[in-house]
Amino acid sequence: MFQTRLKETAAQVQAHLDATMMPLGHLPVIEAMRYASAGGKRLRAFLVMESARLHGVDPQHAIWAAAAIEAIHAYSLVHDDLPCMDDDDLRRGLPTVHKKWDDCTAVLAGDALQTFGFECVSRAECHTDPLVRAELTVTLARAAGAQGMVLGQALDIAAETAETPLSLDEITRLQAGKTGALIAWSATAGPLMAQQDTAPLMQYAAALGLAFQIADDILDVEGDADKVGKAVGKDASAGKATFVSLLGLKGAKSRAEDLVQKACDALYVYGDDAETLREAARFVISRDS
Amino acid sequence: MFQTRLKETAAQVQAHLDATMMPLGHLPVIEAMRYASAGGKRLRAFLVMESARLHGVDPQHAIWAAAAIEAIHAYSLVHDDLPCMDDDDLRRGLPTVHKKWDDCTAVLAGDALQTFGFECVSRAECHTDPLVRAELTVTLARAAGAQGMVLGQALDIAAETAETPLSLDEITRLQAGKTGALIAWSATAGPLMAQQDTAPLMQYAAALGLAFQIADDILDVEGDADKVGKAVGKDASAGKATFVSLLGLKGAKSRAEDLVQKACDALYVYGDDAETLREAARFVISRDS
Repeated sequence: MFQTRLKETAAQVQAHLDATMMPLGHLPVIEAMRYASAGGKRLRAFLVMESARLHGVDPQHAIWAAAAIEAIHAYSLVHDDLPCMDDDDLRRGLPTVHKKWDDCTAVLAGDALQTFGFECVSRAECHTDPLVRAELTVTLARAAGAQGMVLGQALDIAAETAETPLSLDEITRLQAGKTGALIAWSATAGPLMAQQDTAPLMQYAAALGLAFQIADDILDVEGDADKVGKAVGKDASAGKATFVSLLGLKGAKSRAEDLVQKACDALYVYGDDAETLREAARFVISRDS
Repeated sequence: MFQTRLKETAAQVQAHLDATMMPLGHLPVIEAMRYASAGGKRLRAFLVMESARLHGVDPQHAIWAAAAIEAIHAYSLVHDDLPCMDDDDLRRGLPTVHKKWDDCTAVLAGDALQTFGFECVSRAECHTDPLVRAELTVTLARAAGAQGMVLGQALDIAAETAETPLSLDEITRLQAGKTGALIAWSATAGPLMAQQDTAPLMQYAAALGLAFQIADDILDVEGDADKVGKAVGKDASAGKATFVSLLGLKGAKSRAEDLVQKACDALYVYGDDAETLREAARFVISRDS
């Protein structure tokens, strides 16, 4: 059920990105935007579409928010992979943008993907109610910005030169920004669009986001680079504090399982309708990529 | 009159940026955001505030749009100056962000400034009417994105490896994106916020933006690096097609003057109220920095 729905969402959001990027032409920067925003699990888009469904939001509106979050996520990966950042050559098993083109194209394509994300989320087609559009935009900016994702990245950089490794509290705060903020925006986009209470999905997303990151740290230790589609073992060799280094492999796994349970529990108000979101939570800690 | 108003606007927008960035703390990336968004002529903010005044828009709303465009402009400069882009060491007479910090901080600070710009323009304080906020946001995204500023930059990169230098038409199209799109958004922000006709200010901005770029090309040839605050003579030594290389110095100056006249003429519907905007047009071709 979840896997089917995830695949459907992936196909929908891809078709939507393709159509929306169609008028942009074929300069290398534009092709790099397409390349970078293709593929991936589309977990964030899935969270948008499912939370929208739970709140009776028209999927034709929600798809714009789903495309927006995938564009913002893609921009962050393109810039993260740059030589001056994480310096990664592979992403989803393919050359990263700066390897396939060059650094300049990667900087610009990432920039343009961020702008494109904000264009999608504020377009009239995103929602007929302009209040909803404006609120979606400002919450997305907060999630992506210097109090959300970029804050997480800034803390991550600061940690690299810090004298002592991060504590569990510090790494939790870092990850709440770096990966948690966009996941939280995605999962609450539905009630936001329906102008309903975001609290249950916010609780769900907080637990899910953290479980997701713990699973990422576990994959960096146990994962198969071919399946993960990018280099593994980077954190340990860089001596970086991770959930695994702080909790141990067994401790990290058990913490992730607790969080998934917490995420599922937060959905009780939705009853059986939220089963796909519960499956999604179980999926994030069992995935191999 | 114009110089006084420009200085007032610069002080207002700086105070507004400072206050809005206050909660962001003091990590290096955040300090780099402050550093990169400080100073400059604030011409874009001025255009926002003046076009808002002409249309009776509350300055307390307009200042958010002014801060937004200055943040977007600052982000574009930080990324433009990167070693993989134009590789500039100086900006406004000071070390560029990647020189003062490092490339990684410059990429992130630029990213965060873009996000911050979209946060400003979509915040409730920007305008009480959510339709206006949503429209301001989507038009800003179009101006900054792959059909506006980023398109201009992509064409600029493509030109570097092209076999023949750009024609006058091509360079005009490139500049209409690279610098023209943000200037046009700034000058039309007033009527957009007032939900009135943007055509006269759009005409004004099209001529002004082009005159601005021609003046930039002239400064690159005739300017004093100390006054300009950045390296000059780069275009000629790179063999790049510019308005000066295509029209000659005299031809470029005469074209810029014609454009300023055209810009001033476009403002006739506003009568004497638009005198500061006419002075602004004359200023852009007489400036020495």
